[in-house]
Amino acid sequence: MAPVGAALWRSLRAHQVYGANTDVGKTIVSTVLCNAIQRQNQKAAFLKPVSTGALDDADDRHLHRYAGGTLTKCLYQFDEPVSPHIAAKQKTIPRDDDLLASIHKTLSGWAQSNIDFALVETAGGVHSPGPNGNSQADLYRPLRLPIVLVADSRLGGISSSISAYESLLLRGYDIQSVLLFRDEYYKNHEYLHDYFRNKSIPLVGLPAPPTRPAELDASSQSRDEEAMATYYGKVSQESDISRLLEEMSLKNTERVQRLEEMADRARDVIWYPFTQHQGMQAKDITVIDSAHDDYFQTFGTERSTSSSQLQPTFDGSASWWTQGLGHGNPELSLSAAYAAGRYGHVMFAGAVHEPALSLADRLLQTIDNPRFTKVFYTDNGSTGMEVAVKMGLRAACARYGWDASQEQVSILGLKGSYHGDTIGVMDCSEPSTFNQKVEWYRGRGHWFDFPVVKMTGGTWKVEVPEDLQTDLGLAQEFASLGSVFDLDQRVESPTGRRYKDYIRRTIEDLVHRQGMKFGALILEPVILGAGGMLFCDPLFQRCLTDVVRDHPELFSAKGSSPKQSPSWSGLPIVFDEVFTGLYRLGRRTAASFLGVHPDIAVNAKLLTGGLIPLCTTVASQEIFDSFSSPEKSDALLHGHSYTAHAVGCTVAVDSLRAMAKLEGDGSWDGYRADWRGSNPVRGEMSAPDVWSVWSHGLLQDLSSAQSVESVFALGTVLSISLRDAQGGGYTSTAAKGLQQRLAVGGDQFNVHSRVLGNVLYLMSSVTSKPESLREMEALLRSALL
Amino acid sequence: MAPVGAALWRSLRAHQVYGANTDVGKTIVSTVLCNAIQRQNQKAAFLKPVSTGALDDADDRHLHRYAGGTLTKCLYQFDEPVSPHIAAKQKTIPRDDDLLASIHKTLSGWAQSNIDFALVETAGGVHSPGPNGNSQADLYRPLRLPIVLVADSRLGGISSSISAYESLLLRGYDIQSVLLFRDEYYKNHEYLHDYFRNKSIPLVGLPAPPTRPAELDASSQSRDEEAMATYYGKVSQESDISRLLEEMSLKNTERVQRLEEMADRARDVIWYPFTQHQGMQAKDITVIDSAHDDYFQTFGTERSTSSSQLQPTFDGSASWWTQGLGHGNPELSLSAAYAAGRYGHVMFAGAVHEPALSLADRLLQTIDNPRFTKVFYTDNGSTGMEVAVKMGLRAACARYGWDASQEQVSILGLKGSYHGDTIGVMDCSEPSTFNQKVEWYRGRGHWFDFPVVKMTGGTWKVEVPEDLQTDLGLAQEFASLGSVFDLDQRVESPTGRRYKDYIRRTIEDLVHRQGMKFGALILEPVILGAGGMLFCDPLFQRCLTDVVRDHPELFSAKGSSPKQSPSWSGLPIVFDEVFTGLYRLGRRTAASFLGVHPDIAVNAKLLTGGLIPLCTTVASQEIFDSFSSPEKSDALLHGHSYTAHAVGCTVAVDSLRAMAKLEGDGSWDGYRADWRGSNPVRGEMSAPDVWSVWSHGLLQDLSSAQSVESVFALGTVLSISLRDAQGGGYTSTAAKGLQQRLAVGGDQFNVHSRVLGNVLYLMSSVTSKPESLREMEALLRSALL
Repeated sequence: MAPVGAALWRSLRAHQVYGANTDVGKTIVSTVLCNAIQRQNQKAAFLKPVSTGALDDADDRHLHRYAGGTLTKCLYQFDEPVSPHIAAKQKTIPRDDDLLASIHKTLSGWAQSNIDFALVETAGGVHSPGPNGNSQADLYRPLRLPIVLVADSRLGGISSSISAYESLLLRGYDIQSVLLFRDEYYKNHEYLHDYFRNKSIPLVGLPAPPTRPAELDASSQSRDEEAMATYYGKVSQESDISRLLEEMSLKNTERVQRLEEMADRARDVIWYPFTQHQGMQAKDITVIDSAHDDYFQTFGTERSTSSSQLQPTFDGSASWWTQGLGHGNPELSLSAAYAAGRYGHVMFAGAVHEPALSLADRLLQTIDNPRFTKVFYTDNGSTGMEVAVKMGLRAACARYGWDASQEQVSILGLKGSYHGDTIGVMDCSEPSTFNQKVEWYRGRGHWFDFPVVKMTGGTWKVEVPEDLQTDLGLAQEFASLGSVFDLDQRVESPTGRRYKDYIRRTIEDLVHRQGMKFGALILEPVILGAGGMLFCDPLFQRCLTDVVRDHPELFSAKGSSPKQSPSWSGLPIVFDEVFTGLYRLGRRTAASFLGVHPDIAVNAKLLTGGLIPLCTTVASQEIFDSFSSPEKSDALLHGHSYTAHAVGCTVAVDSLRAMAKLEGDGSWDGYRADWRGSNPVRGEMSAPDVWSVWSHGLLQDLSSAQSVESVFALGTVLSISLRDAQGGGYTSTAAKGLQQRLAVGGDQFNVHSRVLGNVLYLMSSVTSKPESLREMEALLRSALL
Repeated sequence: MAPVGAALWRSLRAHQVYGANTDVGKTIVSTVLCNAIQRQNQKAAFLKPVSTGALDDADDRHLHRYAGGTLTKCLYQFDEPVSPHIAAKQKTIPRDDDLLASIHKTLSGWAQSNIDFALVETAGGVHSPGPNGNSQADLYRPLRLPIVLVADSRLGGISSSISAYESLLLRGYDIQSVLLFRDEYYKNHEYLHDYFRNKSIPLVGLPAPPTRPAELDASSQSRDEEAMATYYGKVSQESDISRLLEEMSLKNTERVQRLEEMADRARDVIWYPFTQHQGMQAKDITVIDSAHDDYFQTFGTERSTSSSQLQPTFDGSASWWTQGLGHGNPELSLSAAYAAGRYGHVMFAGAVHEPALSLADRLLQTIDNPRFTKVFYTDNGSTGMEVAVKMGLRAACARYGWDASQEQVSILGLKGSYHGDTIGVMDCSEPSTFNQKVEWYRGRGHWFDFPVVKMTGGTWKVEVPEDLQTDLGLAQEFASLGSVFDLDQRVESPTGRRYKDYIRRTIEDLVHRQGMKFGALILEPVILGAGGMLFCDPLFQRCLTDVVRDHPELFSAKGSSPKQSPSWSGLPIVFDEVFTGLYRLGRRTAASFLGVHPDIAVNAKLLTGGLIPLCTTVASQEIFDSFSSPEKSDALLHGHSYTAHAVGCTVAVDSLRAMAKLEGDGSWDGYRADWRGSNPVRGEMSAPDVWSVWSHGLLQDLSSAQSVESVFALGTVLSISLRDAQGGGYTSTAAKGLQQRLAVGGDQFNVHSRVLGNVLYLMSSVTSKPESLREMEALLRSALL
């Protein structure tokens, strides 16, 4: 099923009519508006997607009768005047996606037929269930039509109107106008007028419609019809109504104009991250009107007044690797809103609140590393890694007795690592395009080159860099990705022994011959993200941690024997799981792929499902204890204003719970099954849980394509290395062509993707619909095969 | 008026009954619950704070009649069955605060009378206005009683029930149970049962009550009463109800137990920011149950079962200087929720969305510095300052032709400066307690000592450090703080000339004799926060910027003449306004106090009113242009995942709008008037806009207190330096006593405050109520005078 785009046209002003409750007069308001539109010599149309109740009473018929000339349409008609989810039990139910698609198609048709104004009327109140039982406010959200809210003029109507407004607002709807009947006893219109004026939303009070007689015989029916006709004739002339229509029309125009100018204006005032602005043109800037599920709704360059101005664009980088549970997720919005309402933000030094404590507990449980006892909060991966570095260095300096203000203490890492943009963690990476021009960058470490995992020509391989082949051996082939991760077996193999031997010798040389001092081993387990989606042979990372821990003597002065320790040995091991952790690779931790328990781990991005910035640095008791002293100045003197931000922590608790549910309820079994078929080694039972949302067949096909150098996928990540005669790297443009091809997209949607040099990667959330992914795969096949 | 504490007792289970709409049967549900409670041999009580409608129909009477034995009370009775805000027009209206205080007092009394269970029934729906026209959901929020929501069983009731639930949730209420009548036709209870089960909220469906006859004569009334009595007799025995009551009781117990254990548990799993954990005890940790307006609701150590377990505690550090518009601000919660619903988070590289663009525009307008054209987004002050440093250094290196990878380029700053916790910006401060033990800290700069502004003995003074007195002169007295800021006059004075001369000579020495290179001047304008609330003589900062700009030759190789530039001269000037900007000191920018337009400025904290982490680094076109090149690698390669976070930007736009409104609508005129009286120099008209929410009289009194060394106040900040025989500084404990005294508080509330060595500071939001501030002042007087 194709995703449905948000609905916006230049010529057609389409609105959705929601009621604050049932029976507040939505259809009468619609009829008034359609009458008034026609009075302005414009064409009106009325769409009732789902109607319940007796056929002759149907709302589109009412429109037809009292706003003659209005084009009316009902997509699904049910007879009983009950909630659509009950009425729908009677007959075939349209799927929600089909219903949305039909609405979009109808409106598009109307736009092309030069209709000026269309109303899409909902049934009941904002949260009244649609045919499949989902709240209408959620169901219709992908269209994100501007809202005409019909408020409730009855006793209690102030409350139900404001609550309905809030329910719409927290789903990201724009409420453009409020109408209700004037009731001089309850005077809801007066209260609500002031209320909505404060929100800059115009409210129009209408005269109450004529009372319908209790029993309708032929004559009373005709009297009723006459009274209604008179009512409409009178009301639709009211100046308030025509003013409101003009305002609505103006808002539509202004919205399109704003979308048109945004890219230009952004180029003027925005300094973009990671962006060379020279030569950047407005057309290079994607204008995002809103987002839902896996899709941005982006403004097109389509200038035809009758074409839809917005289209769904797959968020192919999961918004810089953050997204897990979909954009505009109403559950997470509510979590955030609840915490904002309960706490706002409360300072954390010397204090505790439920979300911070719950998250700490849940996170320790999720990561399930017996070493970990302490959680330190920061705002983002970069700051969380700064904290990790401070922790690791302090523990090592304390153990080895170094005075780091006098001597350089470095870190051990891998080439191509990246840990964030603040200068301290930039220093944890070797010189590269990212940091070499940063004035205060001073790389402080040694970075191992390493063998990489990739699929080429349909076969999984571990490839060894040329200059390491003497030490580490030649490339190896594997029957499956699972067998690459069969580390308990591989670590005992000749390759494992070669890896370890090489690592040990290298460190020995660095420390005992070159005189370097190391304070931490810092790794992005499994995949090095920003460095170019480098899939490190997990055996190499495993051997690195084994050597560090098994040979503490490597790191102390020659001949001295380092203190014994109950937990860490050699060096504190820091895992940067900002990118790879919390289900990004299909598992709770990337560490579990290596079978290693680090001493410090950093998580961010998916931690909050991708909604709110938050980062955790989790550490072992012993690391923590190295800051313990009677001196305040020995403490970890780090802390951001929003440390343990209650809103972020609340959303994180709910995100982790939601992801754990998916992990447990079999949601990913289809993907697992696909990969198990390609993973025959050592029997099903013992095969490591290695799978991806991207189908194994796709990988095999792409890896044989002419323009493709290699591919891999793991969890939600798909990486495609394009051949580049110039050798690739961050400044390569080899992937540009594929990126442009995806940006054009297919019939259903465009794709917003990011490239790292000659690598184009795609990333889904953990809730992406299989249909979306298969459509993405079709796009990739058509682009590359 | 004293702030009202949140309501929680050990013995008394108090709940608030909200209805999804009017006429959903709140009172019947209350009666059922009170009956059932008594059936369990427990004591029930029922409070109707505000009742409207005919007296004999009043809800407390209904309770009295059908749940005999229930203690009932109504605080305010109005006759007409309309919304209380209309009914209230008839007679004297209780103030919202009085109403809350009465409720709290009533419940406290009941807790002391061993009542087990109390219900506080609202009127109408959740947003039905209270007597003063404010929504009940907002009005009653400070009590934050757990909610019994009576859902709506009628057609449309699914929607109104869910919307009501959402409105409560986004104000931070805990909804503990949902009850509604079973209606076998609409079956709302079935739908809602599933809906709330997903939220772990129990829902109980009740049999519908007997239908009341349309007209009540004596005999039908007695039949009606009999039918009701029978109904209650039957329903209150239902096992669902007793189970629900047990659950509610258990939740109350668990909530208290959780609050009791939180401090202990936090000590186990939380690694606190800026905290030495050795010796830290659970009792040192404040347990925050929620927050509202300026107050945390903190858990007391009160063990008596009949005393309130929560008390209001003034957030005296404005939660690390972030708060501007109050905790749990419903407008900002809604802004956040809207953006979460519309976007979630969307990536920003190569894209633009409305909140990011609107905020950039509004911020440029707010700061109103003609140099500024570009806005760069990060997550917090520290990362924003890292960006500022990268910007400044690049511009300077480009102009002066330095290769910073080969030579050390430093910054110019002030002693005691602090710009954040990441290592790069730590390097911008001189060695101090904060950074000296950070292994990778390498201070890179020169930091001027400077004269400070303070009030002692009732007089404003500028004091010069002893070893600078030869160069800068002796202390000076001023008739008002306004005259200290009369910089256009002071800069031309002999003191101004001495300052400039000293600064010029110092830089000349550093550069041309010591061979240092400088890449930026970095200042916290007016007040250096973390360094100990150091109020720098604004003249000194002004002279520093003047000298840097007027003498570009100081910074280039001797004899060479630096390139001409349309904007910056000498060095890029960076203002760190993370703490001081956006109304913290009463003005939009701290720069305006100096009359200086910096080239780069950083804002955070108040930017979002203190709700969501967000930071902006704003720069001039020329700074921006220094990264422009055909090479991507010359770009500012910095960017966090949540760059231009749509939720944060939306909240920021609304916060800036709200603060600008306060600035413009005279909200602070009372404070201004108080300070103008103490600010006679040069006439009212030309006196700079210098004022504080803290009264000038308080300053004068405190500054003469024996234990006080000096004080100052500006905008929302009050700083009190306590005398310390040991000389003060970060490790001083001189302010501990005052801090402890404030923590005990007065009759009305406790105070959570932070100290920086011998300095205790207090900070309000920009919306703090004058009554709260005056009460704080009374506390200070009683502690110090």
